[in-house]
Amino acid sequence: MPSMRATIIHGGFDVRVEDVPDPVLLEPTDAIVRVLLSCICGSDLWPYRSTTPRRNGPGRIGHEFLGVVEETGRDVASVRPGDVVVAPFMWSDGTCPHCRAGIHTSCLHGGGWGSDRVDGGQGEAVRVPQADGTLVAAPVEPDDERLPALLTLSDVMGTGHHAALAAGVGPGSHVAVVGDGAVGLCGVLAARRLGAERITLLGRHPDRIAVGRAFGATDVVTERGDDAVARVLEMTDGLGVPHVLECVGMQSSWDTAVAIARPGGTVGYVGVPNGLESGLPIRAMFGNNVSVHGGVAPVRAYLPELMADVLSGAIDPSPVFDLELPLDRAPEGYAAMDERRAIKVLLRP
Amino acid sequence: MPSMRATIIHGGFDVRVEDVPDPVLLEPTDAIVRVLLSCICGSDLWPYRSTTPRRNGPGRIGHEFLGVVEETGRDVASVRPGDVVVAPFMWSDGTCPHCRAGIHTSCLHGGGWGSDRVDGGQGEAVRVPQADGTLVAAPVEPDDERLPALLTLSDVMGTGHHAALAAGVGPGSHVAVVGDGAVGLCGVLAARRLGAERITLLGRHPDRIAVGRAFGATDVVTERGDDAVARVLEMTDGLGVPHVLECVGMQSSWDTAVAIARPGGTVGYVGVPNGLESGLPIRAMFGNNVSVHGGVAPVRAYLPELMADVLSGAIDPSPVFDLELPLDRAPEGYAAMDERRAIKVLLRP
Repeated sequence: MPSMRATIIHGGFDVRVEDVPDPVLLEPTDAIVRVLLSCICGSDLWPYRSTTPRRNGPGRIGHEFLGVVEETGRDVASVRPGDVVVAPFMWSDGTCPHCRAGIHTSCLHGGGWGSDRVDGGQGEAVRVPQADGTLVAAPVEPDDERLPALLTLSDVMGTGHHAALAAGVGPGSHVAVVGDGAVGLCGVLAARRLGAERITLLGRHPDRIAVGRAFGATDVVTERGDDAVARVLEMTDGLGVPHVLECVGMQSSWDTAVAIARPGGTVGYVGVPNGLESGLPIRAMFGNNVSVHGGVAPVRAYLPELMADVLSGAIDPSPVFDLELPLDRAPEGYAAMDERRAIKVLLRP
Repeated sequence: MPSMRATIIHGGFDVRVEDVPDPVLLEPTDAIVRVLLSCICGSDLWPYRSTTPRRNGPGRIGHEFLGVVEETGRDVASVRPGDVVVAPFMWSDGTCPHCRAGIHTSCLHGGGWGSDRVDGGQGEAVRVPQADGTLVAAPVEPDDERLPALLTLSDVMGTGHHAALAAGVGPGSHVAVVGDGAVGLCGVLAARRLGAERITLLGRHPDRIAVGRAFGATDVVTERGDDAVARVLEMTDGLGVPHVLECVGMQSSWDTAVAIARPGGTVGYVGVPNGLESGLPIRAMFGNNVSVHGGVAPVRAYLPELMADVLSGAIDPSPVFDLELPLDRAPEGYAAMDERRAIKVLLRP
């Protein structure tokens, strides 16, 4: 059986690049995509850092990739062999009621990469289920220099955009972004793209802050916890910020996000909720009418619109990648992100 | 010193109607209102049922009342002695940035009834701080038969309206209302008023369901917990309801509200969050992009609009009152509501 290389997670702090069988079409709605670029997500660090043994043993990992269509099932109509395509971080049929409503992440016939019999994205090739609903073709050549920027549409840029939309950002908005990871930085860029006038980034890593400023942050708050809250309130005459993007998902970031929100304001959230020991700060939310809007980003819904802006040069989210490695060195990439030596790692098969 | 009667809470299950001094103007922005009607709120039952000793001893209680202006401070311009006025359940200046944004409950110079030196509403008269920002005059006589309907604008009808607005209810909406208390029932009426086409009430008390049906509920689900969720999903082809009103504030009601929400849908919530042992169901919210919107209702913002509809006869929320007592029998009213023998109790001084 012909084989290829792919990243396999074996357990906590144990990812390896190994030989796996080449993918083959299983359903008439499948496509096989030869990966040009993939990358490591902050959310990949959750299983990477987990000390719980994996229930189903080692498994494929990675949910952000773009590549060239190699082969399609007989029912696939929207993409053809040779097309450069971007895959969103979940696959979906594009036709169920939830997809039609723009919530592709709740697709009745969709799912995630690297689950069950479905390939992960950090490999040389991927079998893509529901190819018509999932893949978006980009009118570029496989050596286009904008591929890294297009790859961010697979997750982080679409996710930052979801946070900004969920928070109700629009022309003239004052926005605060909690978190300087790749998603938070993309949230800054998305807020600027939507017309925000003032963008306050809460973060404390100089390299990330530099990217945030380049993306449009007008203010930076490097304090944490209560000090960060006091600083933001001081900057807003004690009133708080109407649009807050929660891009971390931890207890401390949630507490900060709600505490700096203006009464009647909205927290747009996209950070995978992890380690929320005491839950959302519901009493503060209730007392101040702070709304909470967001969740897992249906980036498929945003892909065409954001792709047009990447291709026109209106946005370039690619600076979130600050380390590029060949696929075989994926384990180094995980370590670099885990140790915060890299914001986001690009993998080239 | 001239005296009057007012309801005083001494501790758990111990409210008494006692003699207290007549109120006097303390600030030039105050008004004295002679109470025509007040009532007991579901949220009054939280201190009533509390077994923790009261930190500051016995205190005035009640935050819903309407009456006749008796006297005004020299800076009060919007109401005059003789006016019939409705008081919202919190007082506010009407001019601070939060009031101007319609979030009067976060007024920088406002507060609640029955706190510190501020009177409670379940008495014969009340000193109203910030009278211009707080009171809304109703063009009726003190013996108007619509007074009970107007009194609901003090809290429950405005609160139900807030839940419906927060949930994004509009013409043609499918709405689910979790909770058949006075606020849930008003949520049904508010949803119908906003044009909802299908209103599913989750409740199980026949007397309350009857009011809910009269207010516009098109379906009733009497199951609870997982059975209620299964029933609602069955009614919606497994998709869930786009607009859910959470009108209770307990763990079980929250879990139900989020579980029946359609992916991408919104939970409008107004139930005072109490006993949320495990917090909001954040993982379900995240996975399904269910938004949470609402909080303590800024009913002052809605009073003029809802008052017009009460006076025109477009809405009549007064059926939420199913027991009327003279003020001196307020303790019986508390017991009746605590034991669920009454939905909501009207008190007439």
